[in-house]
Amino acid sequence: MHAVIMAGGRGTRFWPASRYERPKQLLQVVGQKTLLQLTVDRIRPLVPAERILVVTGKDLLPEVSRQLPEIPSGNLLGEPEGRNTAPCIGWAALWIQERAGDDVMAVLPSDHFIEDDTAFLGVLEAAAAFAALGPHLVTLAIRPSRPETGFGYIELGPPAATSHDQTVYSVAGFHEKPDRETAERFLREGTHYWNSGMFLWKTSTILEAIERHLPELARGLRDMHRAILAGDLHRAEAVFLGLEPISIDYGVMEKADSIYAFAGRMGWSDVGSWSAIYDINPKDAFGNVVEADLVEIDTRGCLVISPNKLVATIGLRDIIVVETADALLVCARERAQEVRDIVGKLKAKGKTSVL
Amino acid sequence: MHAVIMAGGRGTRFWPASRYERPKQLLQVVGQKTLLQLTVDRIRPLVPAERILVVTGKDLLPEVSRQLPEIPSGNLLGEPEGRNTAPCIGWAALWIQERAGDDVMAVLPSDHFIEDDTAFLGVLEAAAAFAALGPHLVTLAIRPSRPETGFGYIELGPPAATSHDQTVYSVAGFHEKPDRETAERFLREGTHYWNSGMFLWKTSTILEAIERHLPELARGLRDMHRAILAGDLHRAEAVFLGLEPISIDYGVMEKADSIYAFAGRMGWSDVGSWSAIYDINPKDAFGNVVEADLVEIDTRGCLVISPNKLVATIGLRDIIVVETADALLVCARERAQEVRDIVGKLKAKGKTSVL
Repeated sequence: MHAVIMAGGRGTRFWPASRYERPKQLLQVVGQKTLLQLTVDRIRPLVPAERILVVTGKDLLPEVSRQLPEIPSGNLLGEPEGRNTAPCIGWAALWIQERAGDDVMAVLPSDHFIEDDTAFLGVLEAAAAFAALGPHLVTLAIRPSRPETGFGYIELGPPAATSHDQTVYSVAGFHEKPDRETAERFLREGTHYWNSGMFLWKTSTILEAIERHLPELARGLRDMHRAILAGDLHRAEAVFLGLEPISIDYGVMEKADSIYAFAGRMGWSDVGSWSAIYDINPKDAFGNVVEADLVEIDTRGCLVISPNKLVATIGLRDIIVVETADALLVCARERAQEVRDIVGKLKAKGKTSVL
Repeated sequence: MHAVIMAGGRGTRFWPASRYERPKQLLQVVGQKTLLQLTVDRIRPLVPAERILVVTGKDLLPEVSRQLPEIPSGNLLGEPEGRNTAPCIGWAALWIQERAGDDVMAVLPSDHFIEDDTAFLGVLEAAAAFAALGPHLVTLAIRPSRPETGFGYIELGPPAATSHDQTVYSVAGFHEKPDRETAERFLREGTHYWNSGMFLWKTSTILEAIERHLPELARGLRDMHRAILAGDLHRAEAVFLGLEPISIDYGVMEKADSIYAFAGRMGWSDVGSWSAIYDINPKDAFGNVVEADLVEIDTRGCLVISPNKLVATIGLRDIIVVETADALLVCARERAQEVRDIVGKLKAKGKTSVL
């Protein structure tokens, strides 16, 4: 089994800590390791380093390489620009097929957090075994814990099989981000799970699915792969840049047959905002998460991050404070999603030096 | 007429902008000038620079001199250590008497703010004229606008005279900081005014009053003055350090007869905390006071000061943010008084580098 870690994201919701050249997956958001490092560590009991592949932005390769010294440098693929997940996954599948022939590949985002590694590995092992059995497109679905409107949902159909004592569900459908009312209904009914963006399949299975549902992408990927094998990296890059950006969900999963899901809870978080970082970290006695030299009076439910500067707080409730060398964010915790709008405003004002 | 500006304070309520070596009066808290500069500018229409005296900490002299280039350097008196207001005022009175003989001196704190300069100068001129008439100890009393528990109060007695069309009140008594209930009664009854710490008297009047009520201080001051005239600054300093620290209010005003008060409103503020700085500054359309490169979403009633760093705020109400090179304060506006407790905690933790 191979693992493909997708590490090309450029999120804006972790400003000012995240920057275009230092996206979320490269940040320490829980403890001393970055989300990318945690993702690699999590999979290592099942997949040795030489079978872990990381796809990231070409400009991020030096930092990715620095954070993952155990991964052979040949396993780090640099995209000249992001083209969403389908081109990324297709390229990785070709790479694995070239090196190792047909094999199961687990596709994992690099910027999510999973609390219960054991549960995760159990599901992953079962899913890998099932993916190996046939032309199955397998997705990991997360049992929802709240009526979240920020995720896509997978509607589970009837159980189709079992694998390693885990139920394999057929998939009745995919749903875009729902409105609040629909999300509450999903939570009540219990048949709609969060789409985690984690997939398992054989390389032959996904490449055939891309061939069928995204034939132009398949052609482009073959071109690019040939150019790489021929050592013509200039041409390979040009072909990649010409690929249509499309997600694997929209381009393949929502159209294909033989889609199956494994369901789990495993303490998964997409780490979508500073508020999620507050949620997934352990709290002190006052419900604060503090990565700073903090002196406080009556401060509750706050996230305070300031690597270099002493911080004093008085009478704060549920406030996020993030301080970096050139910028400071102070934000109501429940409004952390709007950090993305701050980044929009900064762009509009031409303040590129802090982006 | 001379003016004596007391600039020796070491307040702790403006941390992190104020430090032991950069107290409140040396900070720009309204616009581009420091409170000390504003105090000098305010008095200049009545008192020329060569008759303005500034008493401050010896270590603060270079900065005071830099901020007040128009004041002759011989008019800047440096105390080796603060000994409260009575020694400071007595020293200044001797200095004036030595240079100019008996003259009216206006004693003014350097770290207060007055919005209505015209009203202030009107009261001051009337008070100076009255002080010149006899052995009067004159204080400026501020008509209260709220039931403040942080100030001392002056109870006005019946009108005793008029001066330049202003009523001269006899003083019925002084009151220490009241509790909330008493402060509310004071405000209702309308006869108790805030003690502003601004005084006018002839040098002979205050020196006689010190002689009568604080004879030991009077003796010490004479010793010190003799040593200064003899050029023995070492001895002068030793004598000053031996003076008992006592306030002019407690040591003289509360015991003396012939106390009079002029009453005014004049938009006076003792600038006692960051919250006062919010109050006295003009607000933007959202009720914010901003001295920073700020990008905000739904931020109301906030004070944001950050001279060097971009600040972004989201969903804040009535929050104070003050950022300096080595520290950051985030504080509920109504709790700004507790900044002093933060400084206490920093002292207790031995974090002297940020004090």
